[in-house]
Amino acid sequence: MDLLVEDRHFRRDWSTAFDVGGKAAAQNLADIAAMGASPTALLVGLAAPGDLPAAWAQDLVRGLVAECSRAGAFLAGGDVSSAEKITLAITALGNMAGFEPVTRAGARPGDQLAIAGRLGHSAAGLALLEAGLTEPGALVASHRRPRPPYPAGPEAAALGATSMIDISDGLLADLGHIAQASGVRIDVDAEPLADTRLKAAAAALGGADWLRWALTGGEDHALAATFPAGTGLPRHWAVIGRVATGLGVRVDGKQYPGPAGWNHFT
Amino acid sequence: MDLLVEDRHFRRDWSTAFDVGGKAAAQNLADIAAMGASPTALLVGLAAPGDLPAAWAQDLVRGLVAECSRAGAFLAGGDVSSAEKITLAITALGNMAGFEPVTRAGARPGDQLAIAGRLGHSAAGLALLEAGLTEPGALVASHRRPRPPYPAGPEAAALGATSMIDISDGLLADLGHIAQASGVRIDVDAEPLADTRLKAAAAALGGADWLRWALTGGEDHALAATFPAGTGLPRHWAVIGRVATGLGVRVDGKQYPGPAGWNHFT
Repeated sequence: MDLLVEDRHFRRDWSTAFDVGGKAAAQNLADIAAMGASPTALLVGLAAPGDLPAAWAQDLVRGLVAECSRAGAFLAGGDVSSAEKITLAITALGNMAGFEPVTRAGARPGDQLAIAGRLGHSAAGLALLEAGLTEPGALVASHRRPRPPYPAGPEAAALGATSMIDISDGLLADLGHIAQASGVRIDVDAEPLADTRLKAAAAALGGADWLRWALTGGEDHALAATFPAGTGLPRHWAVIGRVATGLGVRVDGKQYPGPAGWNHFT
Repeated sequence: MDLLVEDRHFRRDWSTAFDVGGKAAAQNLADIAAMGASPTALLVGLAAPGDLPAAWAQDLVRGLVAECSRAGAFLAGGDVSSAEKITLAITALGNMAGFEPVTRAGARPGDQLAIAGRLGHSAAGLALLEAGLTEPGALVASHRRPRPPYPAGPEAAALGATSMIDISDGLLADLGHIAQASGVRIDVDAEPLADTRLKAAAAALGGADWLRWALTGGEDHALAATFPAGTGLPRHWAVIGRVATGLGVRVDGKQYPGPAGWNHFT
């Protein structure tokens, strides 16, 4: 369940209603996939001021339904009320198909770390927009509408994933949650994070730091999971590191020299 | 799922946080029971202003948890955000235990109509409070904290209930929903609605109309269900009428002479 409040989580002058609905659905449905479940249904509460244009609400619902369709879920119901600010309350439901939920707490030293989905595309798209650029268009589209790889979630559960999370705050921040919950250190390799689109965007912006987007950019809702060593993974799972004894998250063996906000992962 | 917004659905100066939580949980958990399911879990989103006293939120949670315990459910999680007005988004989940959900659409002519739980107690309690009275205390308590008969819901499903609803808007209004969805007429007998506590409250108020409380008072969240004729019902299900061909809801064979708001049930 997530609550989204106008002017705190989104702004009507920055996002279309369709994109607000799509993003809101994606962030909740991705949470379901990240526990190894197939999303089945979304319940949506909408509180809004009486002067909200009906077209805005209709576009919101279209965005919600479009993302539900991508995830194989349906918009099952909800409630409507009045409020001064638009408030969305979204609950996502899923089906574990008999598997136990995959949590953040099961990573073990020796596990391999793998990613399904994109990293840093949303952050790069935002940087392009802020610079007045609209190319590479795929990155801008990723910022407006994340495309979580929903089927990879139950697939990971079936493959025996020991822990999983969706990347909503940034790879290092979210791996930090796994490291903390599992009591392990996670070692990330920078090399497999190389991404031609990120590099193109960095070049378009005169030499921006593409690796920072990949390591700290959120909202793409890629799935990061740990698997027992030797697990054969489908190609859309890219191995980007491994689990070790210790605490925190490292990149190429070192603490990532990020902003102060990252210190609590060391 | 229900949304409750401060000053629209509750007022902090009229209700304690504990009662707001208890009522909010009850109205959602009763919806689950009214489909024949056993409530299992509640998800609660709370958006609130930054100056909300922590004690208010803690009492709210205590009220939510207390009602979950009554229902055999647990408070499973949720989300917190900031907002100008307190906004509660509550999603209740339940387990059908293999039965099909009981809807409003299955009542058939010849079925018997039965009630589990109290009718009109909350309305009578409010009338007492408005008159400055606090006795009968059980009615005042019913107004502050409804006590839906949760186990009667799955019991009705197992007994073969053809339709069911919880009384949140008033008996006639909610039976009107069943009559409309099922395409039937529902005949209510006034005699079995007689209730010594309602009569005592009516006397204390100098001769109020106790039957009106029973027929139109909401928020008690009793369960009303229809069962095939001849179904043996446990004692806590009181037979109060039957289903006939036609449309609308009648009391003792006549349209109830209520306020204009009732006309749409004829």
